[in-house]
Parts: sequence; C-alpha cells; structure tokens
Amino acid sequence: MSEIVVKNISIGDELLIGQVINTNAAWLGEHLSDAGFQLDSSLTVGDAEKAILDALNACMDADLVLVTGGLGPTADDITKPTVCKFFETELVFCQEAYDNIISLFNRRGFQMSERNRSQAMLPKSCIYIPNTYGTAPCMWLEKNGAVFVFMPGVPFEMKGIFNDELLPRIRKKFHSVPYEKRIVMTTGIGESYLADRIKGWEDALPDFLSLAYLPQYGMVRLRLSGRHENAGLLRATLDNEIKKLTELIPEYIFALQDQPIERVVFDLLINKGMTFASAESCTGGNIAHVFTLIPGSSKAFKGSAVTYATPMKTKVLGVPAKTIGEFGVVSQEVVEGMAKGVRDLMEADFGVATTGVAGPSGGTEELPVGTVWLGLASSTGVISKCFNFGKDRENVINRATIAAYEILREGILANTAS
Amino acid sequence: MSEIVVKNISIGDELLIGQVINTNAAWLGEHLSDAGFQLDSSLTVGDAEKAILDALNACMDADLVLVTGGLGPTADDITKPTVCKFFETELVFCQEAYDNIISLFNRRGFQMSERNRSQAMLPKSCIYIPNTYGTAPCMWLEKNGAVFVFMPGVPFEMKGIFNDELLPRIRKKFHSVPYEKRIVMTTGIGESYLADRIKGWEDALPDFLSLAYLPQYGMVRLRLSGRHENAGLLRATLDNEIKKLTELIPEYIFALQDQPIERVVFDLLINKGMTFASAESCTGGNIAHVFTLIPGSSKAFKGSAVTYATPMKTKVLGVPAKTIGEFGVVSQEVVEGMAKGVRDLMEADFGVATTGVAGPSGGTEELPVGTVWLGLASSTGVISKCFNFGKDRENVINRATIAAYEILREGILANTAS
Repeated sequence: MSEIVVKNISIGDELLIGQVINTNAAWLGEHLSDAGFQLDSSLTVGDAEKAILDALNACMDADLVLVTGGLGPTADDITKPTVCKFFETELVFCQEAYDNIISLFNRRGFQMSERNRSQAMLPKSCIYIPNTYGTAPCMWLEKNGAVFVFMPGVPFEMKGIFNDELLPRIRKKFHSVPYEKRIVMTTGIGESYLADRIKGWEDALPDFLSLAYLPQYGMVRLRLSGRHENAGLLRATLDNEIKKLTELIPEYIFALQDQPIERVVFDLLINKGMTFASAESCTGGNIAHVFTLIPGSSKAFKGSAVTYATPMKTKVLGVPAKTIGEFGVVSQEVVEGMAKGVRDLMEADFGVATTGVAGPSGGTEELPVGTVWLGLASSTGVISKCFNFGKDRENVINRATIAAYEILREGILANTAS
Repeated sequence: MSEIVVKNISIGDELLIGQVINTNAAWLGEHLSDAGFQLDSSLTVGDAEKAILDALNACMDADLVLVTGGLGPTADDITKPTVCKFFETELVFCQEAYDNIISLFNRRGFQMSERNRSQAMLPKSCIYIPNTYGTAPCMWLEKNGAVFVFMPGVPFEMKGIFNDELLPRIRKKFHSVPYEKRIVMTTGIGESYLADRIKGWEDALPDFLSLAYLPQYGMVRLRLSGRHENAGLLRATLDNEIKKLTELIPEYIFALQDQPIERVVFDLLINKGMTFASAESCTGGNIAHVFTLIPGSSKAFKGSAVTYATPMKTKVLGVPAKTIGEFGVVSQEVVEGMAKGVRDLMEADFGVATTGVAGPSGGTEELPVGTVWLGLASSTGVISKCFNFGKDRENVINRATIAAYEILREGILANTAS
C-alpha cells in the first residue's frame, strides 16, 4: 500500500486576524508524524461558507482531511450547514451527542441553554465520534473515498479526541509507513558548539535518518528520526546511532526521551523515595508550577515558599535580616540560606532556591538584569551557583527554572551515589 | 476601489511536522488587519517543488500573496528555482543583494561561505526588496495582475522587512479600508449563556461590525471589529456599541482591553497601593507564576505559600490539623483557613487560597476530579466558593487560577468601595 495524503484545514476568523496562533496545526503535524503519517499541507480559512467550501473542495485529492475549529456553540451556525451542503446531507438530532452534552453539564453543575442543545444537531451522514472534553461534536464523513474529520478547535478538546478516539480509527483505516524518532535532551552546551562536537557522527548518519536541533531556554533537544518500511531495521539503526551519540557527549545529556527536566527529576525522586521543596524569589513560583503539572507530583514535592517580598525571606525561611543587609538579596549567602531554610521548613530531602534580577529593570553594574543565584541544600550540605540568563524577563524565569532542576538532578545523583 | 484579496503561503517542512509553530501567519494576519487589509487564507506547504507550485497556482485568484520561508541558505535550493519556473524566468546575479550580504557579514565579523554568495542569485523579473536583518532576499514578482512577495521565514527578519519596506509599498499599490477593533474581557459566564444574554444587542449591530467569541479557561474574550471607509464613523459606532454592551453585562466584564485578568488585578492593586499573597494547593504556584511574569509585580505581590503536602498547611499557614482531619483537605474550612493564614503570614491586604482535586486521579464521589475551593481573606473577613473545572489537570489549574483572580478582583473592588 502506498502512503496516504493527509491535509489539515483550520477554520476561524481569529486565526486569520492573528488573535490566536494556530498551534493545532503544529500539534497535529507532530502527532501524525509520530503515528507514521505525513501532513501534506495545512490551510487556514475564516468562518464563512464560501471560504469553507473552497477549502474542502481544494482537499478532495487527499485521503484524509482533518478539520479543526468552527464548532463552538456560537460558531457552528456557519460550519455545520456548510458541511451539510458539501456532503449533500442535512442536520438531524443525534441522541448520543445530546447525552454527552447533558452529562457534561451535569458534571459541571451548569444549566444547559438552547444553543447547547443545537450542538446535538449533526449531519445525517456523519459518524459521531464522542468528545468527552466539551460540548462540540467530532464528526467523520466521507466523500468520493476521501475521509473528512471535523474536530473542535479548542486545543485540549482536539488533542483529547485525537488521542482517545481518532488515531485508533485512522490507524485501522489507513496504511502508515513506520516512523520512529529518538529524542536526546541536552543542557549546558549551545547549539553551534553541540553541532561542532557531534559533526563527525552526524555526517556519517544513514540517508533515511535525519537530525534536527531544537534549542529552547538553555537546553537543546536533538531529534533523530526516520521512516522505513522495514521497522526492525529502522529501530536497530536508531538504537545504534543513539548509543554512539550518548558515548560522544554523556556530560550534556539529561534524558533519552522527550521529557522536560522536571519530569526527569520527578522520576528520580519517586524512584528513590525522596522529596524536594523550593524557595523562590526571581522564579516566582514557576519551579513549583511546572512540577505540579505532573500528575502525582505530590508524592515528591512538599511545596514552595515564594518569598517575593524581601522580609518574607527572613520571616518564612529564616534567612537572617543581617545577612540580607550585608550581602544583598541577590547573593550567594542569601540563596544558600533560602535553600537550607525551605528544606528545614518543608521537611524535604532537598531544598532548591532562586534569587535574581528577572528584569527588565532593577539591574545594577555589579548585578545586571539576568543575574540569578541558585542554591541546593541536602543532607550533605549546601551548594550554589551564579548565572546570567540575559535580559528578557520570561526567558530569565524559564532558564532559571531549568537550571534549578539541573542542579537538583545532579544533586540527587551525587547524593544517592555515595 | 474595492477591497483586495490577500493570501499567505508559508513554506517549510519544519512547520508540517510540528517542529515549529507557524507564528508568522498570525503576525501577518494581525498586522494586515491593522493596516486595513484582510487576510483571506493561510496555507502551509513543505519544501518541495510540486507543493510550492500547487500553492502558488492555488493563489492566482488573489491580488496579493505573501510567501514566507524557504529562502534560508540551505532551503533556497528548492524555492528559488521553483519560483523561476512559476514566473517563467531564470536566476541572475543581483549586485544589490550581494552587497547587502557582504555588509551584513562585515558587520558581524563573520566569513562568507559559497552558500551565502548563491543567495544573491535572484529571479530575473523580480524587484529586489532590501533585507537589512539577514542574508535571505525579499522578492516582489507579478503574474497576471497578482503580486507575489517572497520573504524569509525567520520571524524577526520577516517582521522587519514587512514593517520597513513592504507595508509602505503595499499601501502605495493597493487600497485599504480603515479597520478597528475593541476587546471586552468577560468571566463568570459560559459562552452560550453570554450569547443568549447579549443576543438582542448582537442582532442589532450594524452590518459593518462583527462580533467574535473567544473562550479560554473560564473566560470569554469578545472582539467587536469592523471595517468602514469612514474611519470617524467606524470609531464612533464602536465606542457607542461598547458602551451599550458594558451597560448590559457589567457584572461579567473585567477589562475593556485585551489583557489577562492578573494584569487587571495588578493595575488595581498598584492604583490602590495594596498587596496580596497566595496560599496554593491545587494551583501549585501558578497564581504566583502568572503574576510574577508582570514586570514590577513585586510592588503588589508579597509571595505565595505553595503548601502541596498537607502537613504544610498546618505548619506554614496555621490551618489546625483538627480542621483538616474533620473536614478534609479540600473543604471550605481549610481554604478559608489557608486564605487567612497566608494573609497574616505575608502581611498582605488580601490572601487568596486554593485547594482542590486537579486530577487525573484522586477524585471521589463527593469530591470528583475538578473540584476546587477558592478562598479570599481581607480586612473585612473571609469568603469562599466551590467550583468544578472538569477533568483535564492543566485545564483545572488554569481555570482555578483565573477564578482566583476574579474573586480577588471583586474583593479589591468591594473592599475599596466602602
């Protein structure tokens, strides 16, 4: 069987006027790739009958068309009748969709409106695909051998439906070419230096593999991927190349799968039955935030003292006011006091602390914007490091958070190795 | 003169496999709107001759086609010959483009490579538009009355060229229609209820205005926008309609501009010289995180006690262990104790607290996943509310954060009105 042509259509005026960035198209592209399908093109059009019809007609050469958006309780006035026109069918009441809407409203304790009821009106010839994440329906229709799937545009609904319901159906219907990828997560080395370090290896890669550098916030994610009808060969080659790479740059690799560094730390802590707590000044709660996005994080995380106001570093964490007065709030002495303080307060195995100048203002000659002190307290004592993460506030916060997890990761390994 | 049809094509395999999110399309859409033009559609295709030719042919009905990407030193091997094929022309050496590349390399102190030299080979029939931001050229070509502009895909280069060089040329060649928009931020009411509440007003809007509902995490952003040859009339009509809308649903509106609710709270607190602190369980530091992204937030924010482990609610915030034992950790009594506790601890005017079941596991019959108690302590006492925010962990965290800021916003207004 040959490869199928997959296209995406995104519907929404908000995308065309730039009010919302189309993240759905990228997400679908990535997840289709992972499943062995390739996205051929992605087209965005507005909430208008002619635009939607033109887009659908332009995709008649595809085998599978994934359409997102245009199905909310106020937007589907246009989309659904247009769908009916294209597929030469009419809207009929769908009990299953209606039951789903009712159960959703019951769960949330809200009253249903007439508008929500109309969301259960679906094209007669469609297969209804359950959406347990929201009231908008997911619909599967076919025309001249091409499959069109209409999904809501709200990203978490679209992603949930795609993973739970759609991908299994797509896999069942279409042939995919085995695709595999390996992700290697690195930190502590810039993209061009890394490229120089691994050039010999990269140049010798077989033709059906390709390498991509994805730098972000002081990390570089390497993706080695390929497609091959012989899945066994593909896998073995990837395994072998990744083995060579890890032997080449072991000191920069923190994970051999696509996971954020806090997830690596989570797994380590769970594995060793240990916990941590954070004391955050310049990171403002982001260390806690990214960790608590992980389901089950309460098993490894005691909490965070976000001591943004200086006196709270004394009152909550017990850093002596004298230390702060003498060395300044962004200093080695203060960050070490914070790390020890939060470890004691929260009764954790590790205490990680941050204090810095996130900017954009507040910098001085000695302490320019971007200066961040990181500290780690454990049963063996306390260590600290100073960084400069540049002048963009959000970037400073993100890079400091990642660097804090890297120090914590190294601390856990050092602490449990002895 | 009538309105022109503007289309966008983005070229790049990295967009289709989801490695890079297409932010260029949204940016162009927004800046075209602001300049009085409307983006009709946006199409993304890969770095392949057939895909690019198909895309160009599909845009022959447009007046203006803005193409981004495919012009970097490694990608233009495909794009430029394809452009020549489409416009039936050939590549010739362009001295102006070459001089630009040389001056750029001199400025950066780098050595030029042969690859960069080939970037000065341009289609014979094109008008060269200077790019002072990088080595890739910008090219203006015409075919059967349609204008095609090819820009590099690197966002800061594309934006720089568009603003400096392209928009003035587009304005000179094409007629634009004045465009304006107003944003109204609402919370506390679902999209369909809101639509019902304002139906009369919406139905009576003049033809040249349109309303869009943009829901996210328990908020609905309303965008009222329009285009009219008479800019004064357009502005006056928008002002008048927004005035009517604010009189219709004052209780749900938290801002009359496009800003997140924490920014509204920040402005209110700064204005009144007041502060807040948070005590976070299920939100895990996100209340602190979103606030501390705002430059200058330290003036209004004392800190956050992220008491993830239950005993920390007692030890750090002083919620009696007996209360937790008796009512459970997700309860009105505990959230109120947390709110009071953090207000006292952090010496803030307001203490806001969260405790809930973020999921995906941990729910019970009485306390299903998504249950969140929010509390607010102020000088006048403590209030609390219970919500259910559904079953997606990230969604629960985000919706709880926004609801917490809404309670805080109402609290600040109530507290300072008396």
